[in-house]
Amino acid sequence: MWPNNGLLDMLEIEVPIIQSPMAGANGAELVISVSNAGGLGSLPCAMLSEEKIRTETGIIRQQTVNPFNMNFFCHTTSAPTEAQEAAWAKQLAPFYKEYGVDPAEITSAPIRRAFDDAMCTIVEEIKPKVVSFHFGLPEAPLLQRVKDTGARILSSATTVTEARWLDARGVDLIIAQGYEAGGHRGMFMTTDVAMQAGSMALLPQVVDAVNVPVIAAGGIADGRGIAAAFALGASAVQIGTAYLFTPQSTISELHRTALREAKDDQTALTNVFSGKPARGLINRVMREVGPISADTPPFPTAGAALAPLKNRAEKEGSSDFTSLWSGQAAALGRDVNAGDLTRNLASEALQRMKLLAGA
Amino acid sequence: MWPNNGLLDMLEIEVPIIQSPMAGANGAELVISVSNAGGLGSLPCAMLSEEKIRTETGIIRQQTVNPFNMNFFCHTTSAPTEAQEAAWAKQLAPFYKEYGVDPAEITSAPIRRAFDDAMCTIVEEIKPKVVSFHFGLPEAPLLQRVKDTGARILSSATTVTEARWLDARGVDLIIAQGYEAGGHRGMFMTTDVAMQAGSMALLPQVVDAVNVPVIAAGGIADGRGIAAAFALGASAVQIGTAYLFTPQSTISELHRTALREAKDDQTALTNVFSGKPARGLINRVMREVGPISADTPPFPTAGAALAPLKNRAEKEGSSDFTSLWSGQAAALGRDVNAGDLTRNLASEALQRMKLLAGA
Repeated sequence: MWPNNGLLDMLEIEVPIIQSPMAGANGAELVISVSNAGGLGSLPCAMLSEEKIRTETGIIRQQTVNPFNMNFFCHTTSAPTEAQEAAWAKQLAPFYKEYGVDPAEITSAPIRRAFDDAMCTIVEEIKPKVVSFHFGLPEAPLLQRVKDTGARILSSATTVTEARWLDARGVDLIIAQGYEAGGHRGMFMTTDVAMQAGSMALLPQVVDAVNVPVIAAGGIADGRGIAAAFALGASAVQIGTAYLFTPQSTISELHRTALREAKDDQTALTNVFSGKPARGLINRVMREVGPISADTPPFPTAGAALAPLKNRAEKEGSSDFTSLWSGQAAALGRDVNAGDLTRNLASEALQRMKLLAGA
Repeated sequence: MWPNNGLLDMLEIEVPIIQSPMAGANGAELVISVSNAGGLGSLPCAMLSEEKIRTETGIIRQQTVNPFNMNFFCHTTSAPTEAQEAAWAKQLAPFYKEYGVDPAEITSAPIRRAFDDAMCTIVEEIKPKVVSFHFGLPEAPLLQRVKDTGARILSSATTVTEARWLDARGVDLIIAQGYEAGGHRGMFMTTDVAMQAGSMALLPQVVDAVNVPVIAAGGIADGRGIAAAFALGASAVQIGTAYLFTPQSTISELHRTALREAKDDQTALTNVFSGKPARGLINRVMREVGPISADTPPFPTAGAALAPLKNRAEKEGSSDFTSLWSGQAAALGRDVNAGDLTRNLASEALQRMKLLAGA
């Protein structure tokens, strides 16, 4: 049925659709729906405590026997310098004044933990079928321990250079993350968003450059996009934003409402929420401070100083300071159950591919 | 053979491949090769004198009986203010010093003429099968005169809003120009490049929004990209960069060499060469002044002050100040005759589409 069956066999799934791990936007429920529909559900672990990772994977195992993916971040962390904190405080000062926020209210940023020994130990316990990494790969000894569990390893490339680097380190599959993708870009060998390529250009170049199957991500939200990804040489797709519309995602009503009104030209890459570039729906803080600011403290600390503003604004029903992650194809999203979405996407894609040849 | 035959019938061509009009990079020779191979060759007229337009179209008519496209710009022009000229001079001053350029050497920018009565009169004389516009459409009376010649009318949209605007004004076909595309972006209702969508996301959203067939442009350079465009709902593709590699393009050896070494992550949108955003291979002036500068004089005047630097650098074999237009898929380009390229692209695309369904 599908053009490249090797990936389905490798991951032991029925349809070549991977639900993007979306830290802060999905837990076990979405994973279960997608995996039970024959796709690959993904649990984002970077913002979860060790206890919570164990709880969520326990729930997943209770409700599906199918494979699922555990996703981790591999960034290096550094505390902001005093100069960075001062520059960022200066940028935000007018908003603090407007909302009557005392800088003493700033606490630490939401946890975005890089993969470490403790997390690796959990992977060794749980033995998920798939482990995916964002922002590169962990250090070689940790990566080897994950490989030794028998897990298939995925990571994202935003350039051909990154894809070649991942290929050389023995990942099983490479996600080619096009410019259209929502949320954090996986960039780990470059920082300049102006030079990132769209899926139409990136995907065939990555396919040509590496020895492993390639998963397309970025701008794919319906059967047409999946068929296009296969045309470009992909063996599967990774879809995020379309799953945010499902009742199984854990986004706020503010975010959900904003997504329903999304247009093709209303997102941008911004670093104001975390310190690393991520695509979201344009809002006030992106317009007035970013979308890309030279003053943001390093990932993941930038969000700490925004939190009091976010809290104040959200209480008034405003998303002016809230990260509204979204890819560029949000307008194609549909309010539908995640399991049904997975099955519909698969059947639409197969139908589309048949149409292309049958005409 | 092709999924959407309506467009082929409408334009009276055999393969749904339109060669992008590339002002300064192609004349009659490329048009003839592409049109004789069954595609639609395009003559860019914005940088040609009236006499030259007549000469080139005369040569085309002598060497092919097949349809071709005449392309015009529809920008509004304004002279730079003194403040703009001063800001731009300040930006370029270090380079003028380095190269020993006297600001008195600055002459006017290369002609980039907006479609006007005289050009419309030429269209009425020549009666090409197709007329395409960039940067929107001409004023209604001029547009009506073109329609009255019987020409099919195309224009580019970079957003759904622009596509709807074109659809409402009665164009026959809309080119959805994805973020990946090389050369000048057709943007005419927006100026913010950060919000422009990639082809994977833009194309299906434009297809859903308009009543006319849609032509995909941006990131398409081989049969895989063409098949993907059809999967996304396109009725044809417009391809530029891949044709720059052919002996029929008129680019400099410097440009040709740079394209042969192009990578997926080595282009950016820049306004330093003309005042409007266009995608090219990154070079020194883009790195050091741009890629997007707030100080560029309005299109098309920005290039005048760069010309003396360009001339000096090129004499030394350097493309530091040369616009090296390129899309993000240049690395897929091949040194092949334009007629062969057209035929190869078509047969590769058909084969790819068959493969997708046949598996």
